[in-house]
Amino acid sequence: MGYPDTAEGFLIHDQKKWTEFKRGEFKLKTFEDHDIDIAVDACGVCGSDVHTITGGWGEAPLPICVGHEIIGRAIKVGKSVTTVKVGDRVGVGAQIGADLTCKLCKEDQENYCPNMVDTYGAPYPDGIISQGGYSSHVRAHEYFTFAIPDGLDTVNAAPMLCAGITVYSPLVRLGCGPGKKVAIVGIGGLGHYAVLFAKALGAEVYVISHSPHKKDDAIKMEAKEFICSGDKNWSEKYKFTFDFILNCADATDRFNLEDYFSTMRIGGRFHCVGLPDAALPEMKTNLFVPGQYYMGASHIGNRPEMLAMLKLAADKNIKGWVEPIDISEVGCAEAVEKVYNNKMRYRFTLTNFDKVFGERA
Amino acid sequence: MGYPDTAEGFLIHDQKKWTEFKRGEFKLKTFEDHDIDIAVDACGVCGSDVHTITGGWGEAPLPICVGHEIIGRAIKVGKSVTTVKVGDRVGVGAQIGADLTCKLCKEDQENYCPNMVDTYGAPYPDGIISQGGYSSHVRAHEYFTFAIPDGLDTVNAAPMLCAGITVYSPLVRLGCGPGKKVAIVGIGGLGHYAVLFAKALGAEVYVISHSPHKKDDAIKMEAKEFICSGDKNWSEKYKFTFDFILNCADATDRFNLEDYFSTMRIGGRFHCVGLPDAALPEMKTNLFVPGQYYMGASHIGNRPEMLAMLKLAADKNIKGWVEPIDISEVGCAEAVEKVYNNKMRYRFTLTNFDKVFGERA
Repeated sequence: MGYPDTAEGFLIHDQKKWTEFKRGEFKLKTFEDHDIDIAVDACGVCGSDVHTITGGWGEAPLPICVGHEIIGRAIKVGKSVTTVKVGDRVGVGAQIGADLTCKLCKEDQENYCPNMVDTYGAPYPDGIISQGGYSSHVRAHEYFTFAIPDGLDTVNAAPMLCAGITVYSPLVRLGCGPGKKVAIVGIGGLGHYAVLFAKALGAEVYVISHSPHKKDDAIKMEAKEFICSGDKNWSEKYKFTFDFILNCADATDRFNLEDYFSTMRIGGRFHCVGLPDAALPEMKTNLFVPGQYYMGASHIGNRPEMLAMLKLAADKNIKGWVEPIDISEVGCAEAVEKVYNNKMRYRFTLTNFDKVFGERA
Repeated sequence: MGYPDTAEGFLIHDQKKWTEFKRGEFKLKTFEDHDIDIAVDACGVCGSDVHTITGGWGEAPLPICVGHEIIGRAIKVGKSVTTVKVGDRVGVGAQIGADLTCKLCKEDQENYCPNMVDTYGAPYPDGIISQGGYSSHVRAHEYFTFAIPDGLDTVNAAPMLCAGITVYSPLVRLGCGPGKKVAIVGIGGLGHYAVLFAKALGAEVYVISHSPHKKDDAIKMEAKEFICSGDKNWSEKYKFTFDFILNCADATDRFNLEDYFSTMRIGGRFHCVGLPDAALPEMKTNLFVPGQYYMGASHIGNRPEMLAMLKLAADKNIKGWVEPIDISEVGCAEAVEKVYNNKMRYRFTLTNFDKVFGERA
């Protein structure tokens, strides 16, 4: 076998041995008229990859090839494709399919379509399990394939396809813009993009972090203020200040939510994008009462938001703090271990795919 | 002593003996230039009264006179009062004071003012503890005193001053109106007003209740559909249907929230106005993810909303389902016991105050 029937990738065979990546082959879905074959050049390493291979989010179909922050070149396009040509530089994020006909899809809510297909570990209608971008090729429907604007660097832009859109979509939906005061909780893979995009959208950005270690980084990202939630009575000074809070932390189970809520204006939303394995702290309804507060969460974003984000990133020259790692069995293991142990500042992108998979054209 | 230094009311002296109302005297706050003295003619019986006298919400200053759904006649107005004349029929709800100078008050968010004074059981700046409307007189700042439109009946309108505004305010803030599908959970003292007001605001109203007993009532209130959450798979048929849910139930701790959330459109809010003593069910962040859902709660409403609600009620001839009970030691006990045991359909108003307190002019 081989491409175009199969692709090669770095696979995990056992959730107990989640650093043992092995190069291997997997089947690609049936090629359809709206599909695009992409030769992968870069793939960001996402917290989701780690939750999946470690079993933190439950069982996964094995062997699995993760990775959903993909940039590469279109090498084949289906006969109905209108948005991409062979040779275009394109990206794919965490979603690779949806029915595109249901009420939600028609309302630009395809990221909540009940028939969505995740970029890896999910069954396509033909029974093939989707596989991610730690690989030679990805086959994607054009609706989930995004042209990468010229101004963006491949390695730097890759993590925007998931981490970027995961924070950009709620920022926009919650009204981030000039005149708004927005607090970002947690400066990590997600949070640092939240600071960069909230700032680019015109808001005044405040960073809340549990330890003072990331203060300098937050200020470099042009946060207006850094607030250490480890300080006693930290929230007092900020009562009724923020229009909303985007919580990018993974440690929400250990938060005193009352303190966080108290810093928001009336009707403020505490919006979570990190999805910890652990349950939230015990809550009573009256936790929400002192300011008509809301708590919620979201899942990536839609196609218009993805295109708008990439354009904003190119227009405003937004650069995530991204470290490249050459793809290989060893490189994949190094990356996921560092993400697991929270040793990244603030994102890794696997790169140099040509070296292991050849040129692929 | 006696009025104008004191008022008489039916007081609870011990939270363990919360049906033993005793007629007694209490001090009124210092009369100030914006104050109005009201001879009480009717007072609704609210779930808050019961949470307070039973200790469900914690300790209360004793003896206490509860009641915050008050309608009466203005019998004295301070020299700076401009909105009310002696002889006017006026109402007072669950809030009787605020600083009226802070950022929140200036933004019409006085119902979240950090210096708010509850209508009973809260200290005024002069040290006097506020006392409620199971009484002969209430002294209120004009900002918290509302003209009752001619079209409304005193006994019927009294419960709107708390139960009504508690549901009307979030309905309006969440965008209830023509073209919206709104679900009301729980048909009780709050929920039945929510159905009536949501309908009057122009929305399509769906009632969700745990047992089928209240189906006929919901249909009489002109709900479009009655949904029994005791039925197996009840939520399946309503996936992604409601713009938001107003949860008026006291039993949220026993809900399968996933089912309720799944019936909302993307970005839908599950807004609670009942404040149970018990904690919410254990939640993980990903409960909110399948539709960018939010959960929150609110506290009464502001003055403009109160005036708009009373006008809407008069214009559309909205009548709550209110049963009158003559005020007396026995009448107060009967009312709070029935509320405690959930034996009301759907609200009691204490009435005939002249019989026990005389005419008061």
